[in-house]
Amino acid sequence: MASKHFLTVSNMSKAVIEAEYAVRGTMSILAAKINKELKEGKKYPFTEITECNIGNPQVFGQAPFTYNRQVLSAVMNPGLLSTNVYHKDVLKRAEGYLNEVPCGLGAYSDSQGFKMVRENIAKFIEKRDGIASNPENIYLTDGASIGLSASLQTILSSPNDGVMLPIPQYPLYTALLSLNQAQKVPYYLNEKAGWRVTTEDLQRSYDEAKQKGINVRALVVINPGNPTGQVLTASEILTICEFASKNRLVILGDEVYQKNIYKEGAKFTSFKKVVAENKVPVDLISFHSTSKGLMGECGVRGGYFELHNIDPQVQAQITKLRTMYLCPNTTGQILTDLMVKPPTAQDTAPEVYEQFRKEEEAIFNSLKYRAQMVTKFLKGMKGVTCNEVEGAMYAFPRIHLPPRAIEEAKARNISPDLLYTMEGIFLIKYKFDLLTIFSSP
Amino acid sequence: MASKHFLTVSNMSKAVIEAEYAVRGTMSILAAKINKELKEGKKYPFTEITECNIGNPQVFGQAPFTYNRQVLSAVMNPGLLSTNVYHKDVLKRAEGYLNEVPCGLGAYSDSQGFKMVRENIAKFIEKRDGIASNPENIYLTDGASIGLSASLQTILSSPNDGVMLPIPQYPLYTALLSLNQAQKVPYYLNEKAGWRVTTEDLQRSYDEAKQKGINVRALVVINPGNPTGQVLTASEILTICEFASKNRLVILGDEVYQKNIYKEGAKFTSFKKVVAENKVPVDLISFHSTSKGLMGECGVRGGYFELHNIDPQVQAQITKLRTMYLCPNTTGQILTDLMVKPPTAQDTAPEVYEQFRKEEEAIFNSLKYRAQMVTKFLKGMKGVTCNEVEGAMYAFPRIHLPPRAIEEAKARNISPDLLYTMEGIFLIKYKFDLLTIFSSP
Repeated sequence: MASKHFLTVSNMSKAVIEAEYAVRGTMSILAAKINKELKEGKKYPFTEITECNIGNPQVFGQAPFTYNRQVLSAVMNPGLLSTNVYHKDVLKRAEGYLNEVPCGLGAYSDSQGFKMVRENIAKFIEKRDGIASNPENIYLTDGASIGLSASLQTILSSPNDGVMLPIPQYPLYTALLSLNQAQKVPYYLNEKAGWRVTTEDLQRSYDEAKQKGINVRALVVINPGNPTGQVLTASEILTICEFASKNRLVILGDEVYQKNIYKEGAKFTSFKKVVAENKVPVDLISFHSTSKGLMGECGVRGGYFELHNIDPQVQAQITKLRTMYLCPNTTGQILTDLMVKPPTAQDTAPEVYEQFRKEEEAIFNSLKYRAQMVTKFLKGMKGVTCNEVEGAMYAFPRIHLPPRAIEEAKARNISPDLLYTMEGIFLIKYKFDLLTIFSSP
Repeated sequence: MASKHFLTVSNMSKAVIEAEYAVRGTMSILAAKINKELKEGKKYPFTEITECNIGNPQVFGQAPFTYNRQVLSAVMNPGLLSTNVYHKDVLKRAEGYLNEVPCGLGAYSDSQGFKMVRENIAKFIEKRDGIASNPENIYLTDGASIGLSASLQTILSSPNDGVMLPIPQYPLYTALLSLNQAQKVPYYLNEKAGWRVTTEDLQRSYDEAKQKGINVRALVVINPGNPTGQVLTASEILTICEFASKNRLVILGDEVYQKNIYKEGAKFTSFKKVVAENKVPVDLISFHSTSKGLMGECGVRGGYFELHNIDPQVQAQITKLRTMYLCPNTTGQILTDLMVKPPTAQDTAPEVYEQFRKEEEAIFNSLKYRAQMVTKFLKGMKGVTCNEVEGAMYAFPRIHLPPRAIEEAKARNISPDLLYTMEGIFLIKYKFDLLTIFSSP
């Protein structure tokens, strides 16, 4: 009998059905259900749920930067420019945007993003890396996810194509590969070595894929690690780049946590810097976002990607693809500009700059404190081990389940970690924010 | 010899290469080039270029609503709530949002969009159609394009699947079908009948596709028409819905111009209303946007789609797909709320409401005036005919080229319309805004 619906799970896209997205999947849905039940008065051994399954700092009370929001509000409503509701340097910054973009936030921008913002991103990258950056190679996006999606969509040309992904990973990657009907080629981060990866690990993963007949096309690296928190050194990055170069893999460098580095002495090194300084012949796309870092402006959806050593003909195709969606949201674009060009002591009155600096310091210290606390807390638990959180926003503990728990999971036909999580004792992926309910600095 | 790039046009996605997007394609690139040359002092028989190839009203001086921008700026910076920079009713509206969404614009919302906004959209639809609407069937998006893309991605499951598209069309549709590697099934709007389509036209198109072995899955209807400007009556819509129902096609109803109706006596009727009132058994997805209408807030990227009679299992897949991109930008969500729930004389002080109403009236009258003027102007040109612009933002004239022009185009191996356009006499698709350079009300 024909279904009363024309579109059903038997005739819809298989790729969509196959895509799994754990961040907002089973556990997230279960949490929402329990939250609703709690509100309806149902009893649980706890009274509230803190959703730590995704980096969403402002939900946990992290305030946005006063300066950024003041500037954005005046760009949103240029009527504020003729008031004295903000410090004149704040209004000057907003006015600067409106001079560059006379139509303000309401018109479509260039599909690639406002030129002014791309120029400031290029300057930011140049200052960070000491390597030239061309605004024409920069594409603004609604958050980093859209850029990753567009990049994979551009690269992948056959169901036989594969992409190397770190495991543990941010689950967007496997979901995007399913959507693009491509092969996942996992490479395993070594927990005992602080989630590092060796050339041998990469080569083993690559060879296994090759043996299966997979045409490996690209390599995803997340640095600082999500959800594993490692911060790679320049020499570790070079090893990875040389591997990618040798095997003709496009590198997708997810660098959205580049400001989130807590380990003493560690510093962020970009793939771009390593590739350029060492003249490694490799195609590279790097991603950044306004959702993480210290601003944590997840809802605004700002971000960009930069192409390095990408074939100009391929770049023309990427540009075309981006034009289909007209332009990234303009508020996110201005926020991206504020991220790459924050106020400085030189260009801003002391009282304005000082407030910005203090807010930044407070957020960084709070994140760092929580990174340390959550590690300490986890290490103190029986049956739990955890690496130091060097950067990003997550700790990734190992929970040593007793054999009976593993048997029980088998009996229920679910994975042991899902059993553990569903039992509600713990959320599978610790976020620092978890600790805010226990203590704060 | 191996390319120095790993990713090349010969090994990248064929689907991306095949996708064409005319709105920002050849002509747009040529216009940008000429614009640059004009600035550098090169002589042309004109001194400026007015880019009318896309509905982008604020570029042509259409101002955003004062009320909307004031509210948005206060939601962006809640610090404004404790000032008296705006009327208290404006601040009250902003405060209302912040009460519902305590984290403001900085946190990820529900992937489907803020619940409050979905509830207000449902009320708006109910009021518009007199038909119940469920907020759970509404999905907020960054503009309508993203929703169309997600819908087609969900529906299409094989390279043999096809989608019926009106010709002339908004070129996003053909581009999205190429990206999804599906078949375009054109149906031709009848210019002489005011761009209407008959069941016979639809059936002919469908039958031809079937004969080619195409599995026709969905039907796109744009009402009011883009770029053709026709406004369909309820009975015309019913005919289309019955055709879709008979042939088990999902209807994609692009209704982003629903506020842009200029023809005396014409009114917008939604597909949802017709389908529900007539109990037509058909799967329907309807799209709306903040980019058009009277606000024309293209850069903010707000919009939504509503599911009607969609299989719950399919809906779960759509929900999953939307979660991958975390959430639509929050500014666009609040703007969508302002669109579906504008200030009224009942809930807002007279001076605030009156300003809003006057701005709305002025924009509508200006659009309507330009719709009439551009038609009159085109009709007055030798060799040009043009239907009345009943709605939307475009006139679509027929330019009767002389045989020699057509021969010349053949000789240059380009289409006659491209020849005409490239010769710089005229842009192929007239926008009302073109006329602002000649006259304004």
